[in-house]
Amino acid sequence: MAYDDINLRVPGPTPVPEQVALAGARPMVNHRGPEFAATVGEVLERLRPFFGIASEPLLLTGSGTGAQEAAVVNMLSPGDEVLSVTAGVFGERFAAIAEAFGAAVTRIQGEWGKAISSEALAEAVRSNPGVKAVILTHNETSTGVTNDVAALVAAIRREVVGSQPVVLVDGVSSIGAIPFEMDQWDVDVAISGSQKAWMSPPGMAMVGVSERGWAAHAQARMPRFYWDFTKARKNGEKRTMPFTPAVGVVHAMQEALRLMTEEGPENVYARHAAIGERVRNGIQSLGLELFAEPSSVSNTVTAVRTPEGVETSSLIKGLRQRRVVVANGQDWLKGSIFRIGHMGWVHERDIDGLIGALEATLHESRLEAAV
Amino acid sequence: MAYDDINLRVPGPTPVPEQVALAGARPMVNHRGPEFAATVGEVLERLRPFFGIASEPLLLTGSGTGAQEAAVVNMLSPGDEVLSVTAGVFGERFAAIAEAFGAAVTRIQGEWGKAISSEALAEAVRSNPGVKAVILTHNETSTGVTNDVAALVAAIRREVVGSQPVVLVDGVSSIGAIPFEMDQWDVDVAISGSQKAWMSPPGMAMVGVSERGWAAHAQARMPRFYWDFTKARKNGEKRTMPFTPAVGVVHAMQEALRLMTEEGPENVYARHAAIGERVRNGIQSLGLELFAEPSSVSNTVTAVRTPEGVETSSLIKGLRQRRVVVANGQDWLKGSIFRIGHMGWVHERDIDGLIGALEATLHESRLEAAV
Repeated sequence: MAYDDINLRVPGPTPVPEQVALAGARPMVNHRGPEFAATVGEVLERLRPFFGIASEPLLLTGSGTGAQEAAVVNMLSPGDEVLSVTAGVFGERFAAIAEAFGAAVTRIQGEWGKAISSEALAEAVRSNPGVKAVILTHNETSTGVTNDVAALVAAIRREVVGSQPVVLVDGVSSIGAIPFEMDQWDVDVAISGSQKAWMSPPGMAMVGVSERGWAAHAQARMPRFYWDFTKARKNGEKRTMPFTPAVGVVHAMQEALRLMTEEGPENVYARHAAIGERVRNGIQSLGLELFAEPSSVSNTVTAVRTPEGVETSSLIKGLRQRRVVVANGQDWLKGSIFRIGHMGWVHERDIDGLIGALEATLHESRLEAAV
Repeated sequence: MAYDDINLRVPGPTPVPEQVALAGARPMVNHRGPEFAATVGEVLERLRPFFGIASEPLLLTGSGTGAQEAAVVNMLSPGDEVLSVTAGVFGERFAAIAEAFGAAVTRIQGEWGKAISSEALAEAVRSNPGVKAVILTHNETSTGVTNDVAALVAAIRREVVGSQPVVLVDGVSSIGAIPFEMDQWDVDVAISGSQKAWMSPPGMAMVGVSERGWAAHAQARMPRFYWDFTKARKNGEKRTMPFTPAVGVVHAMQEALRLMTEEGPENVYARHAAIGERVRNGIQSLGLELFAEPSSVSNTVTAVRTPEGVETSSLIKGLRQRRVVVANGQDWLKGSIFRIGHMGWVHERDIDGLIGALEATLHESRLEAAV
């Protein structure tokens, strides 16, 4: 648990350890000065193993959606054909952003709650030979599904005969908690957000860019200024950022990344895997049903079907009275599922508390229903 | 001074009072929950008097440059004619953003260090009858000049015979420290940033929009998603934000705005006016020359010409050794001026410390030069 007495179990923002929050409250500094340069350098360096990249990621000031927009406008030109694989709110949002900026988006609609099949993607790639980009979601926060990005990218690379498209991956709620190997998997742009796996407050986004991504960037003509990757890279090399960053959030990230580095990526991933399993076992022991199919369940977000006869909003309120905060479903799933976040600063005892509170709340709601 | 022992006198980020920083370190909350809704409501309400608007401002996650981009893409369509009044780095940036998104920008180049003249603006408005927008800078952070926005907008409104253009005002380093009356002055979009006058860490931008602004927004066709004002307004009405905001920064702003409300806008402005005068008197007592012309000096940022025989970078380093941090000039002014920020959490003793350190540093550098 964090230093407070709320068990914050929404899929972001996630709890922040007290020492991280206090690091974020350190006295303000000049974002162009030597102290902040050292912080930026340390953060960029410590992010690399979690992204699985040899090059340095970029830092942008904004949310995960901001990073989605940044990925789109830095990689594409208006009219470019894009394949967007969507099976949830955040995949849909990524596609909508590409459309808003003038891309010609073809959606591969996956079933919500299921993983995207490599075969379906391969087929779509064959049918759309001119695509400049393919947009994938690693972890769909709205459904609690993790996609096999390695297999999906391999399918793309195998099917394309001419010039390879850039592959943009939303890793907002996965990178830093679930293994991610950007270089090895041949991903071109990968994005994440400070408030998810990184045990930090929201406000900063991180972006990895491949060599192929930089080549695409040089050709990309969508209008951009604030999100421009060239500005971010040039400033990153000087250990600063093009525009005033959320300095306190970067200070917090520095401290959180020290904790994550000390724990080590493999242990961080193992902890999330164990916690994910603990959540699913607990949910199923209570007789509840997971929304995601068993083979693609996420180790950072669990979506649970609201049981018959229970109102999702009442359940959420009941949990809140027990100081556990979970999230409702989004879009058409609102009211029929609830979502539990378990990434970043999360331990077994948080899940024990969650499952216990859920048991009690369901018991109470059944008693009420029986009256 | 803040709770640290550094006298941070760059023109942003500015010092954060300890109680504000600690409020920003409060335990994380669900950004869609009732606690955060109460915070958002309080922040929006307390911002109003400083913007001088009856309606509620919008909150966006990003820097002041992000807010500039937001103003442009929400008010304009590609090809729209825009008059941009620039006399410094930030006016130039606002114009560059409008161009990046396809506006046809005509620049009215003012002399750096001088206020924009209403007559020149009126003439430009007459010569460009089809303009959809006029872009102004209230306080030019790169030169330490405050423009008379009331007079400039009045000149525009007087000269235009047909449909009035929207007037976009960069108040990033002025609103909250220098009187600003958005409704009364007939400004359509006004932007600011949490890290300037607001005694808060960077990460959030605030935007006021007039009724004329909302009408222009409904017609504006520049591509946008993350910065979309409609999304921000709809979410603001529900006391949340469209995408995960910098929650900790909003918590900090809530505490800072309580302090500012308690002090009262008039007292806040009077303090800044007195501090501004104190800075200028101190600078001139040391035999140094202000960069801005006397009639348009800013009460939040003072630009000082580096004296003959002194290197700006050495001066800055010398001040840093005395734990005072000031900023170099930007663009072509780099090396020939230095800039002192005095907005937000600033008091007489900070300026005493600054002037004393400056005196000692100049004395030392003259001794060195004499060797």
